[in-house]
Amino acid sequence: MNEVQRSVVLDRYPEGTPEAEDFRIVESPVPELTEDRVLCRTEYLSLDPYMRSQIAGRHLSGAINPGDVMRGETVSRVIASGNPEFPEGALVRGFGGWSTHSVHEGKELALLPDDFPAPSLALSTLGMPGLTAWAGLHCLAQAMPGDCVVIPAATGGVGAVAGQLARARGCKVIGIAGSDEKCQQATTEMGYDHCLNRKTEDIAEGLRRLCPDGINVYFDLVGGPLLTTASEQLAVGGRVLLCGLMADYNSNERPAGPPPGLWIRARAIVYGLVVYDFESRRGEFLDEAIPLYRAGKLKSWEDIHHGIDSAPAAFSRLMYGNNHGKVVVQMTESS
Amino acid sequence: MNEVQRSVVLDRYPEGTPEAEDFRIVESPVPELTEDRVLCRTEYLSLDPYMRSQIAGRHLSGAINPGDVMRGETVSRVIASGNPEFPEGALVRGFGGWSTHSVHEGKELALLPDDFPAPSLALSTLGMPGLTAWAGLHCLAQAMPGDCVVIPAATGGVGAVAGQLARARGCKVIGIAGSDEKCQQATTEMGYDHCLNRKTEDIAEGLRRLCPDGINVYFDLVGGPLLTTASEQLAVGGRVLLCGLMADYNSNERPAGPPPGLWIRARAIVYGLVVYDFESRRGEFLDEAIPLYRAGKLKSWEDIHHGIDSAPAAFSRLMYGNNHGKVVVQMTESS
Repeated sequence: MNEVQRSVVLDRYPEGTPEAEDFRIVESPVPELTEDRVLCRTEYLSLDPYMRSQIAGRHLSGAINPGDVMRGETVSRVIASGNPEFPEGALVRGFGGWSTHSVHEGKELALLPDDFPAPSLALSTLGMPGLTAWAGLHCLAQAMPGDCVVIPAATGGVGAVAGQLARARGCKVIGIAGSDEKCQQATTEMGYDHCLNRKTEDIAEGLRRLCPDGINVYFDLVGGPLLTTASEQLAVGGRVLLCGLMADYNSNERPAGPPPGLWIRARAIVYGLVVYDFESRRGEFLDEAIPLYRAGKLKSWEDIHHGIDSAPAAFSRLMYGNNHGKVVVQMTESS
Repeated sequence: MNEVQRSVVLDRYPEGTPEAEDFRIVESPVPELTEDRVLCRTEYLSLDPYMRSQIAGRHLSGAINPGDVMRGETVSRVIASGNPEFPEGALVRGFGGWSTHSVHEGKELALLPDDFPAPSLALSTLGMPGLTAWAGLHCLAQAMPGDCVVIPAATGGVGAVAGQLARARGCKVIGIAGSDEKCQQATTEMGYDHCLNRKTEDIAEGLRRLCPDGINVYFDLVGGPLLTTASEQLAVGGRVLLCGLMADYNSNERPAGPPPGLWIRARAIVYGLVVYDFESRRGEFLDEAIPLYRAGKLKSWEDIHHGIDSAPAAFSRLMYGNNHGKVVVQMTESS
């Protein structure tokens, strides 16, 4: 095989928000296929905020240190296989990392169904971000019609799906985003009833106005002071989904949380949400989400970048909040 | 009626932990009975940590300001009544406050059943502290046999009941208390498997040793740094009951809580517990607790003080953590 494997490694620990220069490309021979393993060529790579927390050594999947290849979920084409379950030519989902090639045991892979709407969706709306949104709203918070649901990072990978799923359930959906343009997109395209610009608006005042009876569900994707602001305005019996800490990812500190008395006063239920726990319910999620997608009620926004070399800058863009939709790197031109 | 009503009012905001001198006694004529109301003479008054938070203006029942009569739950004897449901001579439970007399509407009172084991128990083990412990363990955390349950303020009003109820359910029960004497009482009399002295022992190390597989239920009665220490050691799927903030009550600040990432990592479920929400389930609690009490499996420890004049010093003693069991003021000599 004449191909070369190209991968992105962490070059140094970022100071604050990661820059493209904190990473570098390394080349190596494409790995050999051994025994019953499966050799894959990456077609799509997912870039996600949690990767910042891996770099900070605070993610439950373990740390990434300088010299390590960045990890990440991928959709890949099987190019050689010792496992009949994953024949050459099949499309598979797995954790191939920031790399053009990867080798896996079969148990690390899942086949993409033939009728799957589009491969990249397995990393976005119909993938982990979608499953996260569904697990939070459906399995944990049990969002009900009429509930006031507040979603910071409204237009991000998880937020965009959460907003649409909450809307489909008959909730009142309030987004928070970092620009007027994102707020515009949230309300005109994603079905949010309202969206607050956290850079120009008083969020506490806005939430009081938009959720006069209090917040029933706060789908926390950012942590930081917004979590305290929202916790101050929970309705009695409000639910908080702790799912991401975007505001904290770029810090080396581990910032404290809201005063617990706020949650006592609201009789809140606060859930720590880790999407991996809901892998067994992915089928149930897709049974709900694919028909919504086909009916045009669950749209997908992808911020597509091209080629492995684009990954570092694309990740930095994500961490600065400048992405528009789920960030995916398309690795090959033909897919 | 020749009696005089004696009440305790807040004289000034305490600086830090309340002292007896922060309160004063006021006298007034015993209130007149009007229309369909019920005039009561207080027999027992409950003193509880949440009263500190009323003084700080942070309790959901509203603030107490200088000049206001202190509020509190009472067991009282009806001495005159315009309401046939609460005839003269009946024993009733209500919120009579720190006062020798009180007048109520019928809907504010509950009759004590004739076969109730002892009136003061309606304020302690078989009253609100007991209901709090039961609601937390049974209704919310759903403590299961084998669960490692950690209870700070192990020997306090709620803690003593929670420890015994957890033990009765087959949990491994770890207490945290403020003296060797209390720890001794917790393990020899209250059924705790172990008790850590927070003033002399390394709690983080002790919890690692005693709960090697992590904490399944943390029944938080104190807030403060202990809540973070316990949250760092939650088992996956651990439950945290936020129920009291003893460590914060004497502060004018509203201290921040644990870093939310700890609860994400543990996939924790964190419940804000307010006992008033479980009033409708008091009967269910008593159906479980009274047989345990009669069988000697649910013991009661009361720190009894005598006469309304003793209330301020008794409350200060409670806030310094020097009480031994549930603090109750017995107002009359004959009851």
